[in-house]
Amino acid sequence: MDISSYFSVWGKLEPATQQALSAAVMSRRAEVGTVLYRGEAECLGLVVLKSGRLRTYMISPDGREVTLYRLLDGDICLFSASCVLNGLQLDIIIEAERESELLVIPSYIFKQQMEKSLPLANYVNEIMNSRFSEVMWLMEQIMWKSMDARLADFLLAEAVLEESTALKITHERIAAHLGSAREVVTRLLRYFQQEGLVELSRGQILLTDEKKLRELAG
Amino acid sequence: MDISSYFSVWGKLEPATQQALSAAVMSRRAEVGTVLYRGEAECLGLVVLKSGRLRTYMISPDGREVTLYRLLDGDICLFSASCVLNGLQLDIIIEAERESELLVIPSYIFKQQMEKSLPLANYVNEIMNSRFSEVMWLMEQIMWKSMDARLADFLLAEAVLEESTALKITHERIAAHLGSAREVVTRLLRYFQQEGLVELSRGQILLTDEKKLRELAG
Repeated sequence: MDISSYFSVWGKLEPATQQALSAAVMSRRAEVGTVLYRGEAECLGLVVLKSGRLRTYMISPDGREVTLYRLLDGDICLFSASCVLNGLQLDIIIEAERESELLVIPSYIFKQQMEKSLPLANYVNEIMNSRFSEVMWLMEQIMWKSMDARLADFLLAEAVLEESTALKITHERIAAHLGSAREVVTRLLRYFQQEGLVELSRGQILLTDEKKLRELAG
Repeated sequence: MDISSYFSVWGKLEPATQQALSAAVMSRRAEVGTVLYRGEAECLGLVVLKSGRLRTYMISPDGREVTLYRLLDGDICLFSASCVLNGLQLDIIIEAERESELLVIPSYIFKQQMEKSLPLANYVNEIMNSRFSEVMWLMEQIMWKSMDARLADFLLAEAVLEESTALKITHERIAAHLGSAREVVTRLLRYFQQEGLVELSRGQILLTDEKKLRELAG
């Protein structure tokens, strides 16, 4: 349960802070689909993802989803501690998308240390800034990009994540990532197939022309 | 040029930090339409708005605008110092929407002090968190709300800002706030007029039924 290797700032932290964080860290396993954070209800604490994958998403009043971002091996999740981050009110859900191994620092300990340690406070600032930048990037995509460009972008990103151009994902799941409807995704994928960009079969989407997909993604 | 009254955290800052910030502060006047920040090009520093109004917005590759938020008397603008906030990459513009009086702390001094002062670092964290929350709220509006609800919401907010239900604003400007097209705004406003929610005349929109507008805004 060594947390030091996951914090790039570790070497700059005061010994007392290092000790307090190390002593408080817990390890946790999350099965696929486990909800780790939902609004104010569960304030887990600071989460370090040792292995697996987490998805952070918003959900509309009528149940539509849109993915904000995914966390991969070694990433730090701040939002799961948002209850102790003054001023942060986010209506989001964090879910294990793969079986995941986590290190958790409980919220109150994390808050205590952040109020005592300048390098930790600035590190949290930095993580927050980069999450903010990612969400702003997403907002630009949603505002200015057409759905076909966003779908092409999503398929390419998914192929990188899965290390395969044969994607096993339903149209329904893609719609939930993009904040769209299944019918819209199906219609666009059929159009992509017609243009030779993908090949569709039961439960699978094969990317057949990544170059054209990249052009479409812009 | 007393900056102490604008920082709620001032009393908790170390004397050295108070002194450094006070000594560095400059005052500046901005006419309507002055661009205070544009991407990486101009990194003004931390801005305190003494009086006036600032608008923060994004702009699409083809020139469409959408307002992120406005800053009012006494508000602190962090994004104008984003060049010294590690990890923050925002493609935004900050513009004076009214004639404004500003206090400015240059970026490098602000960064220096943030790296020395724990209460200042946590204060910056807190401001950033609340801006993030506002932007996430806006993203939810854009994702899940129809344009008529967003327009009703905008008209009501504008009436509060202007302290008047007779709004002197063009359809073009409204479209730029909402990230929409002028034609869409005009069509919706005509529909609002038909339903008795507003009265349109040259260069003016009179809100005639705020209760119904609130219902529509949801």
